[in-house]
Amino acid sequence: MIDGTGKTDPSLRIRIVFGDDAMLGPGKADLLERIRDTGSISAAGRSMAMSYKRAWLLVEEMNAAFQAPLVESARGGAKGGGAYLTETGEAVLSHYRKLETIVAQAGAAQIEGLLSLRSDVSSRK
Amino acid sequence: MIDGTGKTDPSLRIRIVFGDDAMLGPGKADLLERIRDTGSISAAGRSMAMSYKRAWLLVEEMNAAFQAPLVESARGGAKGGGAYLTETGEAVLSHYRKLETIVAQAGAAQIEGLLSLRSDVSSRK
Repeated sequence: MIDGTGKTDPSLRIRIVFGDDAMLGPGKADLLERIRDTGSISAAGRSMAMSYKRAWLLVEEMNAAFQAPLVESARGGAKGGGAYLTETGEAVLSHYRKLETIVAQAGAAQIEGLLSLRSDVSSRK
Repeated sequence: MIDGTGKTDPSLRIRIVFGDDAMLGPGKADLLERIRDTGSISAAGRSMAMSYKRAWLLVEEMNAAFQAPLVESARGGAKGGGAYLTETGEAVLSHYRKLETIVAQAGAAQIEGLLSLRSDVSSRK
């Protein structure tokens, strides 16, 4: 279920929901990670086959959902701007990845139970 | 974080994601529980301020996502039909509720870390 990077099997992931809003899920977590790795929101989005607009929207959603922005960026400029994770961004990503690992481990029996009951994935997109 | 029913604080819940699809989350789990309790998809939906059409759509999504239907129903008839959870439906609901409890317990430190960083909920809907 868990590989060396601490990521869970893509066939089962979790989304953290506050109230009615999905605040943090696998897509946003991956985006944060790739922004950290590439130093660019557009490059991060591109690596996930995500439009620049979509990547920006997700970053704005995340920045609004927390007390401090998770991503800081400079648009334009000679080098086309750049982006990086703030201390809050690093903390949120770290909590999420640890939670994924904890869920995969502590919840293994229940997850296996759910997986064993789902439709055959080979017939799904 | 957990009350006597095993439900987690509504301010933090989890959604189980298979592949790109959110298969099971707090709304669907609550709907299953209310169908079990009321014996009716429409009554269950109503108790969640959900339209009949929306409740049916969610039931159809869940039924398609698993090997066997989670909810069986009889439309129409003298008593307006009725609905109940199948054995698979009971199993899925049970796994989900247990997973919620496990996440809330095993993931408490990470969840508290995330909660402490989120925006002030008093300013949100």
